[in-house]
Amino acid sequence: MQTVAMTTEVSSTIIDGKFVAKNIRGEIANEVARIKDSASIVPGLAVILVGSRKDSQTYVRNKRKACEEVGIASFEASLPEDCTEEEVIKHISDFNNNPSVHGILVQLPLPRHINEEKILNAVYIEKDVDGFHPLNIGRLAMQGRDPLFVPCTPKGCMELLHRYDIEIKGKRAVVIGRSNIVGMPAALLLQRGNATVTIVHSKTQNPEEITRQADILISAAGSPNLVKGSWLKPGAVVIDVGINAVDDPESARGYRLVGDVCFEEARKVASAITPVPGGVGPMTIAMLLSNTLSSAKRIHGIK
Amino acid sequence: MQTVAMTTEVSSTIIDGKFVAKNIRGEIANEVARIKDSASIVPGLAVILVGSRKDSQTYVRNKRKACEEVGIASFEASLPEDCTEEEVIKHISDFNNNPSVHGILVQLPLPRHINEEKILNAVYIEKDVDGFHPLNIGRLAMQGRDPLFVPCTPKGCMELLHRYDIEIKGKRAVVIGRSNIVGMPAALLLQRGNATVTIVHSKTQNPEEITRQADILISAAGSPNLVKGSWLKPGAVVIDVGINAVDDPESARGYRLVGDVCFEEARKVASAITPVPGGVGPMTIAMLLSNTLSSAKRIHGIK
Repeated sequence: MQTVAMTTEVSSTIIDGKFVAKNIRGEIANEVARIKDSASIVPGLAVILVGSRKDSQTYVRNKRKACEEVGIASFEASLPEDCTEEEVIKHISDFNNNPSVHGILVQLPLPRHINEEKILNAVYIEKDVDGFHPLNIGRLAMQGRDPLFVPCTPKGCMELLHRYDIEIKGKRAVVIGRSNIVGMPAALLLQRGNATVTIVHSKTQNPEEITRQADILISAAGSPNLVKGSWLKPGAVVIDVGINAVDDPESARGYRLVGDVCFEEARKVASAITPVPGGVGPMTIAMLLSNTLSSAKRIHGIK
Repeated sequence: MQTVAMTTEVSSTIIDGKFVAKNIRGEIANEVARIKDSASIVPGLAVILVGSRKDSQTYVRNKRKACEEVGIASFEASLPEDCTEEEVIKHISDFNNNPSVHGILVQLPLPRHINEEKILNAVYIEKDVDGFHPLNIGRLAMQGRDPLFVPCTPKGCMELLHRYDIEIKGKRAVVIGRSNIVGMPAALLLQRGNATVTIVHSKTQNPEEITRQADILISAAGSPNLVKGSWLKPGAVVIDVGINAVDDPESARGYRLVGDVCFEEARKVASAITPVPGGVGPMTIAMLLSNTLSSAKRIHGIK
């Protein structure tokens, strides 16, 4: 007779962002094909890359591949590290006026001598698929207004909650981090979904105590293993946006990627959790494709 | 020998908005006189009133009086209830182009047949002294950006905290209500001040429990006596934005004004509290004057 190992440990649902993102890319590819057939419109995404940061080059390459895969046309402008603001704006202006381009993305960070605010404000709001324009953020914050685009990473977080049927209305939600590109818009989206939202940040005096009140936690602190299992309410849903490189001599690359949340501890407490990698990461590009498709449909008045 | 009644009851500081607002109006009057002398500039505020609501007429009259008192020029356009959107926009456009006007305010609410969003968007952002434009709200939400104007009522709340030396950084703050004109911008301002902020709203399941965590409470629910003494953390600072009319047969008018907070209960628990009336109310117009003065200085490049 065999013995069966029994355990009282409850394991949480692993929210499979890679799988969800693949499904979404499939849906987008179908829709791109449909509007190409019915209206002869091919959505187009333009990326502007300044300088030669390795990580930025990788992101841009991944975006190009993702576009190709779903049938979105991609456009690129690569400018040298020492180019001027005027040159960057000239390229943005060309893309603004190019009817084949429906989304424009300036790869961040920009070199220090270039004013990010000035550059981002040059992108037509109708093509601001990153959703970083203050007019978009304002509309996101306001009741009765709708942004043209929702920033990709927080939109990806919400889509994961949605596809896993996780109710938001009336829930306590905590967002760790208040960046313009993730934490703050994530909090605004949860608020729009009628959650009761608290933002925890570097000046918060008792982050653990507040985080433990969360039914839904979105962590975007960029701090490896910040959130321990003891920080979580049993049954909480955890969306980990952090992608942090930590030294790992056993890895061939010398490092490995971890989230903001201690995954092994958290999975014993949470009801559902995203892994890193393979959680939120793949959703960001999927949402960028989704925003580009929506933009093309809106610009051409396609339902 | 006389007996002395002893009590352990601690009474809180009453935050005197009427007094603070009067001081601010005095400061503004001095500054208006200074720039008139030094640069021959008179700040100007234009108000557009549509229809004949009694309360709106009262507000507009109070604004005019407040302007006169500090030396700000006031302009008014009163339009009939049944006017068209185009007529309202025509008047906004005239004020936009009038160099004597530095602030434009459209008195809300507008009649139902007029699209509020469209009207408010017609006001030049440089003259949007109400700060309701989504571009302003977006900048308020974003780190590293600054709005041209901060909405008057939440700005007044922050000014009261400031003038009573109440520290915000690192404190737990709760805002009850998430309206575009008070609750939401108040939360963004507290967040900018490095408080840890939670917004409580109609879908929040345990408002009492969350409110009791607040070191600083701003209540803008518009619900008379919603917040009981038992909802407050001992020593909390309470800013009550609510101005609610409740029946009162003993009053000559048949009603009296109360806040969102049970004042008599709260003053036994809070360390400081605003009364209603005489708390936040007088601050709103003072902040409108302040925004108009700032606008004139910015437009004319006066330090």
